[in-house]
Amino acid sequence: MSITAVELKHAYRLLNHGPVVLVSAAHAGKQNIMAAAWNMPLDFDPAKIAVVIDKNTYTRGLIEAAGTFAINVPCMQQSKVVMQVGSSSGKEARFAESDKMAAYQLPTFASTKIEAPLLAGCVAWLECRSLQGEIENQQKHDLFIGEVVAAYADSRVFSNGRWHFEGHDQLRTLHYIAGGAFFATGDSVSITP
Amino acid sequence: MSITAVELKHAYRLLNHGPVVLVSAAHAGKQNIMAAAWNMPLDFDPAKIAVVIDKNTYTRGLIEAAGTFAINVPCMQQSKVVMQVGSSSGKEARFAESDKMAAYQLPTFASTKIEAPLLAGCVAWLECRSLQGEIENQQKHDLFIGEVVAAYADSRVFSNGRWHFEGHDQLRTLHYIAGGAFFATGDSVSITP
Repeated sequence: MSITAVELKHAYRLLNHGPVVLVSAAHAGKQNIMAAAWNMPLDFDPAKIAVVIDKNTYTRGLIEAAGTFAINVPCMQQSKVVMQVGSSSGKEARFAESDKMAAYQLPTFASTKIEAPLLAGCVAWLECRSLQGEIENQQKHDLFIGEVVAAYADSRVFSNGRWHFEGHDQLRTLHYIAGGAFFATGDSVSITP
Repeated sequence: MSITAVELKHAYRLLNHGPVVLVSAAHAGKQNIMAAAWNMPLDFDPAKIAVVIDKNTYTRGLIEAAGTFAINVPCMQQSKVVMQVGSSSGKEARFAESDKMAAYQLPTFASTKIEAPLLAGCVAWLECRSLQGEIENQQKHDLFIGEVVAAYADSRVFSNGRWHFEGHDQLRTLHYIAGGAFFATGDSVSITP
């Protein structure tokens, strides 16, 4: 595996095709990770993204306290992890002593510019600072806007600003539907107008 | 082809997997359609969606004037149309006399609750009213929030709240990357935690 930095001007391309993501955050010794299908790029430069984080999630409190969060883009080989993370809440009693990362033995590594841990085995990561002055969007729409301050990708499937999954089916990203059903990112289609 | 109504509580599932969409709008005898990769569901009930509409687009003026817009979900068989619509602006002189729909001979049919025309050949359609009180999001982030007031899908690939593309490769939805490159929605993956 080789994790390489992604130019911030290309960070939107990590989410442009609409994959499900895992949002991680940490604050004051606590950390958590949750699934979020509702995410999208919001701007190119400075790179911004939008993600919906429900009020009931444990991760939300950590994001509000830390002012930062990470977007982890999981892949096929992590499909079980995506369901584990997405179908459990960090608020459950079973995670009181050992958090989700520990309980599910999820390997993480450190962010470079924020506190949130990054999930190993993903194919892309965006470190984000929660945009100031967006309290109304957070309260009214559960909408969090992040400025991307660092971005990384697994160069086996993303390099020079492009995804290339051919030959790496287990590293294809996932698109969530509902009830444990996903689509894998499919064939490349190149179109000339 | 059989277009059937989608329950509004399931409307989010039309966008949940992150497809590129075409946004159409109409006002006072003018109409237009544009591509938008940056879209996502925002709420279940009432069903809301969010989409980024740049200030430079012709469609934006129509949306602001009409207060409504339609999300059309295109598919593989329309890939050329997606590029035509996405790489041209309704503001171009060539569309002064005949709009994009006429110039590209795009077949449309009428919405049921709003003014915007719907593009035939797509696999899903969401008729939206632009949410009131969101001027700041529109101005600051080019972010439009729509309440879904009607939703339809091609029942060959979406029924009972689920996509089922098997056997209909030309009706698979598209995920945009950049520069004319897309992914088709791929294989189904079902996961039990």
